[in-house]
Amino acid sequence: MSELRQDSTTREWVIIATERARRPDEFATAKGDKAIEIPEYVESCPFCPGHEALTPKELYAIRKGGKKRTAPWQVRVIPNKFPALRPTEDPARLQVGLFRGVGGFGDHEVIIESTRHNGYLALMEDAEVEDVLTAYRERYLSLRKDPRVKFIVIFKNHGKAAGTSIEHPHSQIVAVPIMPGGVRAKIDVAERYYDDNGACVYCSLLEEELYSKDRIVMESNGYVAFEPFASRVPFETWIMPRKHATSFCMLSESDSHLVAPVIRTILAKLYKGLRNPDFNMIFHSAPMEDEDTPYYHWHIQILPRLTLQAGFELGSGIYINSTLPEQTAEFLRNVEV
Amino acid sequence: MSELRQDSTTREWVIIATERARRPDEFATAKGDKAIEIPEYVESCPFCPGHEALTPKELYAIRKGGKKRTAPWQVRVIPNKFPALRPTEDPARLQVGLFRGVGGFGDHEVIIESTRHNGYLALMEDAEVEDVLTAYRERYLSLRKDPRVKFIVIFKNHGKAAGTSIEHPHSQIVAVPIMPGGVRAKIDVAERYYDDNGACVYCSLLEEELYSKDRIVMESNGYVAFEPFASRVPFETWIMPRKHATSFCMLSESDSHLVAPVIRTILAKLYKGLRNPDFNMIFHSAPMEDEDTPYYHWHIQILPRLTLQAGFELGSGIYINSTLPEQTAEFLRNVEV
Repeated sequence: MSELRQDSTTREWVIIATERARRPDEFATAKGDKAIEIPEYVESCPFCPGHEALTPKELYAIRKGGKKRTAPWQVRVIPNKFPALRPTEDPARLQVGLFRGVGGFGDHEVIIESTRHNGYLALMEDAEVEDVLTAYRERYLSLRKDPRVKFIVIFKNHGKAAGTSIEHPHSQIVAVPIMPGGVRAKIDVAERYYDDNGACVYCSLLEEELYSKDRIVMESNGYVAFEPFASRVPFETWIMPRKHATSFCMLSESDSHLVAPVIRTILAKLYKGLRNPDFNMIFHSAPMEDEDTPYYHWHIQILPRLTLQAGFELGSGIYINSTLPEQTAEFLRNVEV
Repeated sequence: MSELRQDSTTREWVIIATERARRPDEFATAKGDKAIEIPEYVESCPFCPGHEALTPKELYAIRKGGKKRTAPWQVRVIPNKFPALRPTEDPARLQVGLFRGVGGFGDHEVIIESTRHNGYLALMEDAEVEDVLTAYRERYLSLRKDPRVKFIVIFKNHGKAAGTSIEHPHSQIVAVPIMPGGVRAKIDVAERYYDDNGACVYCSLLEEELYSKDRIVMESNGYVAFEPFASRVPFETWIMPRKHATSFCMLSESDSHLVAPVIRTILAKLYKGLRNPDFNMIFHSAPMEDEDTPYYHWHIQILPRLTLQAGFELGSGIYINSTLPEQTAEFLRNVEV
């Protein structure tokens, strides 16, 4: 028996298709352990230490022994060499009839997470993950100073199926000069829920997930990781702060200290339980104009790329997921890391 | 210089990233000509003729020499062996707090397009494509009789990257008991445009595309094929009827006769120009409840799967397209078939 489930934060539906059910552990069997094959240093990699001259000029770095530019870096941020958008462009609006365009203004940066070519977040020390989060936040705060920036997204593509072209562990941050349609839709859902209930839909959801316990993977003092009720893909995992805050950029040092072990643990559970699956990780924050409103709540989504979306998803917007999130949550709870 | 463009029918944005520009012909070089390798008949294929007992019971067929069940079929429709949804389920609503579900009622059928294991639509006679369209329409009309069905989508996954698991040419039709969120959003955009302008946004768009000519691939008496202004992926192609009609199910026999050569020609141009690319083809029609309204307009979308969507697309809903639709339109216009 299949079941349709609605995501209460987007109002999108998924089909949990248990006719096609696969046990959580079946997803692990196809994957090898890539980390064993991947060396710590690769001569031709532009992101490995010593090759800094091969990349565009550094925008930010965290260095051993402080701010001296000659000290070795640990985390390094550079402009994307082939940026989708550029800070030097003009975000001018152009409209001819129904054809609306905006100039290619924006920012597109790369966060090199480690000096090690095989330095996965899943295998790091918590303090190293904290450094990566610090770099994310510093760049987010810097990019959002420009009033032409309307929305910023931080994301990581891990593995070929997740769309990465460079093996060395890195994340990306993109600032855009428009409000994306899908983001507007999420904001509208959150706003309507707030109007109807006087509460943030994400706070309410977290409360209900914690009460039901079925889909919780782990909880810490400040953060909760769970498989959402309407998981779009097998092992979709959300990490959400208990404390209401609209944007990742509001993360304090003590928050970083709380969330880093949760991110590291979830990625380590996926790494061990599914043998280094390809995945996308996304930091969802309110657009700049909604940062001071009471209804949005920042969160992290991790989406393993174990299945493909096909014509049905493209035609209906409905995902078909062949696993029960209650089962993948149990599977991940039991992976010891 | 990059450029952001908005799709006037969805209000979604894409980045046309010419920094990463690839010439249209570069997409062809990586592909071989699969049709040469694929035989006309495969002993182990459940969709090849003579293996009918391996599939669920036939729902509909077009036969040589009329309706006699013993006559050989040309197009055959069967239930999906592993359906995402089943007509025997009850679409009961279940809600506990923020967790909303609906029972797995629906239909999921497979349209076998040809007796030939390598009988691609791109290589068919126009009359054979017409037969496939007749099967689509007959099943659409049959499924929509059930008042519990709210939305029907017809789609085709061609090739592994497009999510197909069975090689023998086939399409699928799925009927769902809910209004998908993304479909509601498209309807809202069309409705608002109608309120503001007293016209169908798709009719207006078609008029403007025909006036500009830049993105037109071909036009016939009744149908126009073009690369949309905000193409999400390289070679995204839309086929749209000139005559306003909300749903594919309103297609008459004479309409089939007009659209079949356009579908066949576009697929043949892609097949020849890009050497048999993987693609999804989707028939977008109004949900049942909007069939009699004046603002929606059915259309076909063909989305080649030449690139991958990654964290940025998942996090922002914005696609990054590395080609200009004006250039892919020109490329396809020049492919002779």
